[in-house]
Amino acid sequence: MNPYSQVTIVGVGLIGGSIGLALKERGLAETIVGVGRRQQSLDRAANVGAIDASTTDLDEGVRHAELVVIASPVSAIAGQVVQALAASGEEAFVTDAGSTKAAIVAEVSSSCQGGDSRFIGSHPLAGDHRSGPEYARANLLEGRVVVVTPQEGSAEEGIAKVESFWQNLGARVVSMSPEEHDEALAATSHLPHVVASVLAGATPEKWLSLVASGWEDTTRVAAGDAELWTQIFSQNRPAVLAVIDNFQQELDDLKTSLSQQDWDKLKDTLQNAKRIRDALGN
Amino acid sequence: MNPYSQVTIVGVGLIGGSIGLALKERGLAETIVGVGRRQQSLDRAANVGAIDASTTDLDEGVRHAELVVIASPVSAIAGQVVQALAASGEEAFVTDAGSTKAAIVAEVSSSCQGGDSRFIGSHPLAGDHRSGPEYARANLLEGRVVVVTPQEGSAEEGIAKVESFWQNLGARVVSMSPEEHDEALAATSHLPHVVASVLAGATPEKWLSLVASGWEDTTRVAAGDAELWTQIFSQNRPAVLAVIDNFQQELDDLKTSLSQQDWDKLKDTLQNAKRIRDALGN
Repeated sequence: MNPYSQVTIVGVGLIGGSIGLALKERGLAETIVGVGRRQQSLDRAANVGAIDASTTDLDEGVRHAELVVIASPVSAIAGQVVQALAASGEEAFVTDAGSTKAAIVAEVSSSCQGGDSRFIGSHPLAGDHRSGPEYARANLLEGRVVVVTPQEGSAEEGIAKVESFWQNLGARVVSMSPEEHDEALAATSHLPHVVASVLAGATPEKWLSLVASGWEDTTRVAAGDAELWTQIFSQNRPAVLAVIDNFQQELDDLKTSLSQQDWDKLKDTLQNAKRIRDALGN
Repeated sequence: MNPYSQVTIVGVGLIGGSIGLALKERGLAETIVGVGRRQQSLDRAANVGAIDASTTDLDEGVRHAELVVIASPVSAIAGQVVQALAASGEEAFVTDAGSTKAAIVAEVSSSCQGGDSRFIGSHPLAGDHRSGPEYARANLLEGRVVVVTPQEGSAEEGIAKVESFWQNLGARVVSMSPEEHDEALAATSHLPHVVASVLAGATPEKWLSLVASGWEDTTRVAAGDAELWTQIFSQNRPAVLAVIDNFQQELDDLKTSLSQQDWDKLKDTLQNAKRIRDALGN
């Protein structure tokens, strides 16, 4: 394929920086422009080689872009998508890398009143509990799933362009509606964060010297940024509440087995969990 | 120090095998005898170099031991400790590697009627969700904590001998009562397993293709052996029920924050969890 003439990445942290590094390593873009609120952050991204040029002015940064990728915290995405659609050319497409989709799509749609056909939402299922361009790596998306969430009115050309963008970075694209994405991610990503955080928070600190790899693994994501996760929970509130309800019911069932010393039932519960976990490997 | 003339390891799986390999590598024992129910398992342990000799007859295996380490599944430990105390010499000490302590100590004490001063319980906080001597490694205990749980009547010489045994394998020894151990481990090990299992079991299988590292980390321990974990929960039932209650309360509080859109409180909860998790590093 011909390289993109210009890709603009808004928010050059771990994900945005990794996209930049991957575009460079694979020779997929003639110019990569980084947009951010603080020049200092953009300079850090430039230092690790993730972008070629930078600006704190979003309008200026997207003006000549062929593709704009918004990789900001979720609560900022919708507003930046609307701004990027207005400031970019008619041939440009806009996508994002947000962990929630329905609220973003709804906000963009309501602001643009039908003029959002050039926006196609995405969510790369890759990341790290660490953040910042220093942790970016060119292979972050290799072999990972990127969910692309076209909605009614999305331009066919834009869907194809966004899907091939992620595929060119080495990712596998799965397409679903924004609502289905949010329901799925509530179970596979947001609930694990809830559970890990409650578990870490419930551990008496005097016993932290006694934790081993089990506690470390189970609580690892609780080290994620509290502000970012509050935004994610806020954006996907009904679906997250639903999966918490379901989790509480299942936990109550396990507690009842333990309380009633129903060891066969408890073992079945653990065995079923093991079967599901084993399907994924390490 | 002079090497032990003979160390007998009862149950040569991941932990028992790793103890054998470490004793060998460090030149700490003249002879390492493995005891197990099936000769086939003992042959596997011998093949990886964890033991020098083996027998399926516990009495025979411990007869000339200077130290006996019971590394069997928790529900088998107390009976084997009683048997090892009876069959070994008056100079021999017996310890174990079980994940629970109070129930084992109580059962040994009740069976031996005061004749258990040569038994000092231990729990090495090391392991893996995999099992079997094939996964054993000489450095499994290096730098890890081993909890030693002397009780009233424990021989001072035995306590010193068991503590130095683990220290010689590279571990750091922490001493506490069997009851305190069980309460701590309910929070740091048993609750993570409960939570990971419920989370894995509650994940709709159609969405397993969408999980990323967060789900993978948070559910990893759910791959542990269901039978072994049922035994652990059975042996530490009251303490595990108590930590589940506490977890449920904290989860309910988080759900209330989310439900009431109290973002400041939700963020505080996540921030506190992050602070505790960050104290441990990766």
